[in-house]
Amino acid sequence: MSGDGVEDATVKILSKPKLREPILIEGLPGMGYVGKLAAEHLVEELRAKKFVELYSPYFPHHVAIEPDGTLRLLKNDFYHASSNGKDLIIVVGDVQAVSPEGHHKVVDKILDVAEQFGVKQIFTLGGFATGRYSRAKPKVVGVVSQPELIERYKGHGFTVEKGGGPIIGASGLLIGMGKLRGMEGVCLLGETHGMVVDHNSAKAVLEVLVGILGIKVDMTNLEQRAKETERIIERIRKEMELRERKERKPTEEEASYIG
Amino acid sequence: MSGDGVEDATVKILSKPKLREPILIEGLPGMGYVGKLAAEHLVEELRAKKFVELYSPYFPHHVAIEPDGTLRLLKNDFYHASSNGKDLIIVVGDVQAVSPEGHHKVVDKILDVAEQFGVKQIFTLGGFATGRYSRAKPKVVGVVSQPELIERYKGHGFTVEKGGGPIIGASGLLIGMGKLRGMEGVCLLGETHGMVVDHNSAKAVLEVLVGILGIKVDMTNLEQRAKETERIIERIRKEMELRERKERKPTEEEASYIG
Amino acid sequence: MSGDGVEDATVKILSKPKLREPILIEGLPGMGYVGKLAAEHLVEELRAKKFVELYSPYFPHHVAIEPDGTLRLLKNDFYHASSNGKDLIIVVGDVQAVSPEGHHKVVDKILDVAEQFGVKQIFTLGGFATGRYSRAKPKVVGVVSQPELIERYKGHGFTVEKGGGPIIGASGLLIGMGKLRGMEGVCLLGETHGMVVDHNSAKAVLEVLVGILGIKVDMTNLEQRAKETERIIERIRKEMELRERKERKPTEEEASYIG
Amino acid sequence: MSGDGVEDATVKILSKPKLREPILIEGLPGMGYVGKLAAEHLVEELRAKKFVELYSPYFPHHVAIEPDGTLRLLKNDFYHASSNGKDLIIVVGDVQAVSPEGHHKVVDKILDVAEQFGVKQIFTLGGFATGRYSRAKPKVVGVVSQPELIERYKGHGFTVEKGGGPIIGASGLLIGMGKLRGMEGVCLLGETHGMVVDHNSAKAVLEVLVGILGIKVDMTNLEQRAKETERIIERIRKEMELRERKERKPTEEEASYIG
Repeated sequence: MSGDGVEDATVKILSKPKLREPILIEGLPGMGYVGKLAAEHLVEELRAKKFVELYSPYFPHHVAIEPDGTLRLLKNDFYHASSNGKDLIIVVGDVQAVSPEGHHKVVDKILDVAEQFGVKQIFTLGGFATGRYSRAKPKVVGVVSQPELIERYKGHGFTVEKGGGPIIGASGLLIGMGKLRGMEGVCLLGETHGMVVDHNSAKAVLEVLVGILGIKVDMTNLEQRAKETERIIERIRKEMELRERKERKPTEEEASYIG
Repeated sequence: MSGDGVEDATVKILSKPKLREPILIEGLPGMGYVGKLAAEHLVEELRAKKFVELYSPYFPHHVAIEPDGTLRLLKNDFYHASSNGKDLIIVVGDVQAVSPEGHHKVVDKILDVAEQFGVKQIFTLGGFATGRYSRAKPKVVGVVSQPELIERYKGHGFTVEKGGGPIIGASGLLIGMGKLRGMEGVCLLGETHGMVVDHNSAKAVLEVLVGILGIKVDMTNLEQRAKETERIIERIRKEMELRERKERKPTEEEASYIG
Repeated sequence: MSGDGVEDATVKILSKPKLREPILIEGLPGMGYVGKLAAEHLVEELRAKKFVELYSPYFPHHVAIEPDGTLRLLKNDFYHASSNGKDLIIVVGDVQAVSPEGHHKVVDKILDVAEQFGVKQIFTLGGFATGRYSRAKPKVVGVVSQPELIERYKGHGFTVEKGGGPIIGASGLLIGMGKLRGMEGVCLLGETHGMVVDHNSAKAVLEVLVGILGIKVDMTNLEQRAKETERIIERIRKEMELRERKERKPTEEEASYIG
Repeated sequence: MSGDGVEDATVKILSKPKLREPILIEGLPGMGYVGKLAAEHLVEELRAKKFVELYSPYFPHHVAIEPDGTLRLLKNDFYHASSNGKDLIIVVGDVQAVSPEGHHKVVDKILDVAEQFGVKQIFTLGGFATGRYSRAKPKVVGVVSQPELIERYKGHGFTVEKGGGPIIGASGLLIGMGKLRGMEGVCLLGETHGMVVDHNSAKAVLEVLVGILGIKVDMTNLEQRAKETERIIERIRKEMELRERKERKPTEEEASYIG
């Protein structure tokens, strides 16, 4: 966001860790907050370190307020961690872009960063909505960039969806646009109602991922994290509603209070 | 979609067939899926070969899932075929652009590719909605870039609409923007209800086209293809509805199932 | 619209007439079609000649069908004429841009052309909606770029609106953005209901304009022209409605007619 | 807005005052018009001088009509003033940008100007909606770019909101994007209903600001200014409604009046 105008996205590189063919893992806000919950849990449990921040004019024109009373732009963050001899880059964040064009441009920038650090493999995490509540263990659907990946990863507890419906947003675009750059990709989607923050689905998705990667992650705090997320979302929703209601005209009596 | 940012559209050229003044035929999704059905049927029956893929940030931010469980970006595909000594380029695809600006930019890119391969003539295929169901053979309306084309092609079973309403999307823009590049164009629109995938209308449009081109195409599988298309659209529509419903708040009882 | 991408607008110059400080007159579609009617009447009566066509990706993604059955892109046209020793450039057209950004960009291009031909003075024509029908002679409001223009042109039958509401679209932006280029401008707005093509209002606006310019224009055909415009708009509206209705699901019985 | 196309924003510099590390104060239209009222009052009382105008294609495609009957583009204005040995730049204006992308680009341009004149510190003024009317003195919430600013400015009568909801528009983005340029920022938001022009909230916000800056500002005219603003907004709202109603079809009887 220099004086020469705002680019599609601004990438702020905080450090340049040396990573050997790191695996990109994405979990941005989406259906049931499944991907975001899963990826943030991974950041926490693996004590991953933030090394890149990405800002974009295609994000909403809001800013976030932190628990310490400071304000910051909405962003996507890149963390790196190592586990079981594998280098990981984990992308989490506040938001996805607003418009179709913005989605494409931000995902393209994420892939630029990924390529710069040597990424050849991508796992994206998300949810798929069923509109139903169920006490059963959530199903995890895997969608891949190349058919041979189904064979390679089968037996890790995900179902292959043949000819399923569209995947909306970064989880799909990262795999699709990454494929054009020669990257392999797997999109793991946990079954979820769609309307609530769903830690059960996030857990199911994470279990498949850690199985594939051969790493270990404690799931204990996941439920607690989901509850906090739900609380934050609920508060923001209420405040947004207030802003939208402002168009209603005050009654005579109400208006008399102004002044 | 290189590291230098996302352009208006990314053209991936798979091969460079030598074509002699090929004729461009377009059938992208639109009213009654008439154009898409007709053009895809042509690709199939003429055993056309794909040689160009076109991606754009102006397409929706979805990805498609293939029957083999792999995922890919939405795109427009260029096929080439020869029939009756004529070289044809057939453009089919998943989608059209989302915004007015995107429509113009994608069509401009399609014309860039067309020009590069020597196209001087364009036929675009689509439907026009009547809002009525009828058992009669659907009427086909022809709209042209230059008045002399009416004379040249008359007697091939299409009606000329003098001063008709606007044509929306690629079928119209390709002819209009192609005309600015000195290309001739004919837009063939089959009468259709507008709400269902209409193989009868597609057949009527194709019959006019093959008459003009002097080629032969078996129409037998067209109805079967329409039914498959209807099924796919119906499934995607249902899944999209689920996603949209996610805003509704769960009841207390429902919410208790989460956790 | 070359192979290098679609610019904000494409200007096709058909001829380069030598004009001495020509006066720009604009009448694009808007409230009550007042400006369009007035400017088109002027083109006709002064036998003005088209010399520039302007296309833009910010226009709607439709094409228009001409009375001879040919199709063309939506556009804005520049005509030139001479009357009473004055050179005039008259801008008419099918549409205005769709988005706020598009409006600014297209108006900027119109001003580029105007500047290239030496324009220093602009008159824009339009309507302002009252929501009322009246048999009285429509009032004409004049809004100017510099206060001295009120003094200069007073006595020509327009009212000055001090602190009135916003003027939307090209008629206002042309004056506002032209002022930044050092051009003088007057916006003449005829009182109109807002919902019908209003030749009475167009006539009132034209009478003020021809008074200021000291030219003579026969008003006889204006009513006939308004009726034709109304007919065209009505037909297009009906066809657009049909397209929008296509989302409704067919009944079982209706659907059985397909196939 | 030169002939080379419309940039993200056009900055017209009227004069280049020498300012020593001036403090930027922003008050653009928003919730309850709190920020706009407060900043305009400051301009008036400090007899600040306009030195920069900023235009953008991302602003609405309207123009404003001045009390003297002239028309002008919507814009943001920069004023400078000195008080208590401090140089101030005050940004006020008609509007904010329309789209998320536009918001980012216009704020970026404002920061370009600020940087050019040596700004290191920003105060943005606005309101936060409660949806309630209250006769109590409005609370002022302060949100900051760096945690140490809370300590530095505490005791000036604002509350720190820890983890509050998002701040929409320029007041938040200026602090957030300014922080990326190394600037310090404080956003002061006055409690307001959200639906009416609220001079009480503006006064509360101003009192905090003048306390921090150590300057003196007479608040007497603030209520009068709020009433004028309310009147202008109300008139514009009514005129906009008229424009939107124009889609309704006239009755037979009404239509007969045309002609």
